[in-house]
Amino acid sequence: MAVINSALEGIIVLDLSRVLAAPYCGMILADLGAEVIKIEVPGKGDDAREYPPFINGESGYFMSLNRNKKSLTLNLKHPRGKEVFKTLVKHADVVLENYRPGTMDKLGLGYGVLKEINPRLIYAAISGFGQSGPYASKPAYDLIIQAMGGVMSLTAHPGGLPTRVGSAIGDIAAGMFGAIGILAALRAREVTGKGQLVDVAMLDCQVALLENAIARYWATGKAPLPTGNRHPSITPFQAFPTKDYYVICAAGNDKLWEKFCQAIGKEELVHDPRFESNRLRTENIAELEPILFEVFRQKTTAEWIEIIETAGIPCGPINTVDKVVNDPQVRAREMVVEIDHPVAGKQLIHGVPVKLSDTPGRVRQPAPVLGQHTREVLQKYGLTAEEINLLAQEGVV
Amino acid sequence: MAVINSALEGIIVLDLSRVLAAPYCGMILADLGAEVIKIEVPGKGDDAREYPPFINGESGYFMSLNRNKKSLTLNLKHPRGKEVFKTLVKHADVVLENYRPGTMDKLGLGYGVLKEINPRLIYAAISGFGQSGPYASKPAYDLIIQAMGGVMSLTAHPGGLPTRVGSAIGDIAAGMFGAIGILAALRAREVTGKGQLVDVAMLDCQVALLENAIARYWATGKAPLPTGNRHPSITPFQAFPTKDYYVICAAGNDKLWEKFCQAIGKEELVHDPRFESNRLRTENIAELEPILFEVFRQKTTAEWIEIIETAGIPCGPINTVDKVVNDPQVRAREMVVEIDHPVAGKQLIHGVPVKLSDTPGRVRQPAPVLGQHTREVLQKYGLTAEEINLLAQEGVV
Repeated sequence: MAVINSALEGIIVLDLSRVLAAPYCGMILADLGAEVIKIEVPGKGDDAREYPPFINGESGYFMSLNRNKKSLTLNLKHPRGKEVFKTLVKHADVVLENYRPGTMDKLGLGYGVLKEINPRLIYAAISGFGQSGPYASKPAYDLIIQAMGGVMSLTAHPGGLPTRVGSAIGDIAAGMFGAIGILAALRAREVTGKGQLVDVAMLDCQVALLENAIARYWATGKAPLPTGNRHPSITPFQAFPTKDYYVICAAGNDKLWEKFCQAIGKEELVHDPRFESNRLRTENIAELEPILFEVFRQKTTAEWIEIIETAGIPCGPINTVDKVVNDPQVRAREMVVEIDHPVAGKQLIHGVPVKLSDTPGRVRQPAPVLGQHTREVLQKYGLTAEEINLLAQEGVV
Repeated sequence: MAVINSALEGIIVLDLSRVLAAPYCGMILADLGAEVIKIEVPGKGDDAREYPPFINGESGYFMSLNRNKKSLTLNLKHPRGKEVFKTLVKHADVVLENYRPGTMDKLGLGYGVLKEINPRLIYAAISGFGQSGPYASKPAYDLIIQAMGGVMSLTAHPGGLPTRVGSAIGDIAAGMFGAIGILAALRAREVTGKGQLVDVAMLDCQVALLENAIARYWATGKAPLPTGNRHPSITPFQAFPTKDYYVICAAGNDKLWEKFCQAIGKEELVHDPRFESNRLRTENIAELEPILFEVFRQKTTAEWIEIIETAGIPCGPINTVDKVVNDPQVRAREMVVEIDHPVAGKQLIHGVPVKLSDTPGRVRQPAPVLGQHTREVLQKYGLTAEEINLLAQEGVV
């Protein structure tokens, strides 16, 4: 038994991925201490390096997904590049990629080839539709995947337009399940001694997010409808517009309803026969809502939180991102941290949501500039300075 | 080295959790082969057993989150119940709970106590705001967490109301990061021989979903605004209303724009000076949208998919849940499967999104009825039939 500082210390990930889904996966592993070596096209790198917003010319999009990783440039189309990659594979625990299915095979670097080099290798492929099935070769974007997977149809106000989730949940969910798959495969390898293929599809992950919506369809034979910002059977349990934005209140029973009416100065509603029980309040929401909306418009969200919370009723603001990053709980939990980037300067970035008591994850270093660790990594895995110079001259790194 | 059928075979999880966030975490582990023993209050069980929809009187909500688990009833407030739990802890790898912080300590079963019994134990606590910070003891619901975490503020049409994500992403994201934390802690234990505390907060996980929104705030000093169903800088890359619902088209460059115009029978738009480049199309979207909306209203989503896809342009339908469960790709990937429940009968349920080639996860068995495995589990861990009868008589199980 040994001491480690991070849960995934000693795990080496060769991360060939671009843009969002698989880079998010690699970030999770890097945050938890894996050595994630991002392998990028020489002179160009991850497409996301060109995505806005820019901070001193560096992509904030890229920086928010690639902290804690190393950058190695390598041309996988060049025969010497393939050789170097195969050398790295001998030492690696995980290869992670999000090309369209078949791309790595065409490069001669598919799982079939790599597992001969290293039978302990875990090969994780994250794609839009997966490595199999009739849509396997279709292109995928977050918007298309959110649409096809059903979540958009549920994300709307009653009668309103389906709405894309404002974070790229089509990509991110696949990144998260990818990390789960890799970690599960690492555990399996502890028992079997062998690696395996982890195949994660963005669309599959959206289906896994539907939870009871499939049961609702099965129970009724009808597609579930969106309920907007209201609980379908508890009232009041919803968003209220305030003087400056919105507040959520959740008065889940008659006792809380009474306290709620007192707190907002509407005692007369407590014994209003239209609103005397939760069932009646839910049935008569069309009459209740305008009364409550008028009240809530009179104060700010912060004022209402103070009032409602003091009355012991679960509540919270709808926070815009500026509010989120300055929230005392978010700061106390180090879920937003500052980091110094050599080019972009001081940067605000989200923290690590998995809090491990003994081997904690952390934001150790900012996203790498392109090729920042090429020499370091190649020397570590046995190439001489002269060999690396030659590769650089030939444009292989 | 040994052979295993499932990646987490042999891992024992004592799952004390209720409703959604942590049960989703337990489900991920159970799907991948862990023995997840759901510990429920005798005579009552998980609150979610009472949540609609009901299928032959069984909760579809509960069934969709608890497949592959065992149910053991145990009263943790009873001294004998505590004893039995401690016996189980000796054999367990993981304890999983989603009580409010401090509840397990009050029961005398906090991590501090349990790790003395089993230093290899991984103790995972999933809560609304985490085990620390000023909000630690506040109550949390998915709606409040989605609101506070910022995702709701980004989920809206331009100028429209913030919108709750139609799946309980506040809960589910915490369940997923909980699984990542547990698997990472299992890996750490392989090295160190020791378990640890995994503290996952729903709010923290929402912050981790914001990806580049924090960078956008940092770059501009302003809270990012929602962009609805459109790409902010590529046009056309959005949802179009059709005769029956919606279709997404993503024509990402001028060549695709030309093909797109031809496919929809609007060749005259290709050289319209208002729309000649992506920049112009994006700038003049207010003029372009009405023209395209009129065209798209003339055919169904399925007809448009056929046309647009044949033209080689990335596209997809917005699917309601009935469409999702019958989608050929979803079925080919076994992301919706049928399972027989002893009471509810044939049931449609989502599949396992993590596809492992050698130790695949699977939906092995339906959600348990309350206490279905009480005797089996207790006998396995050393209690005699007589002891179990006595516990039953005293209402401990």
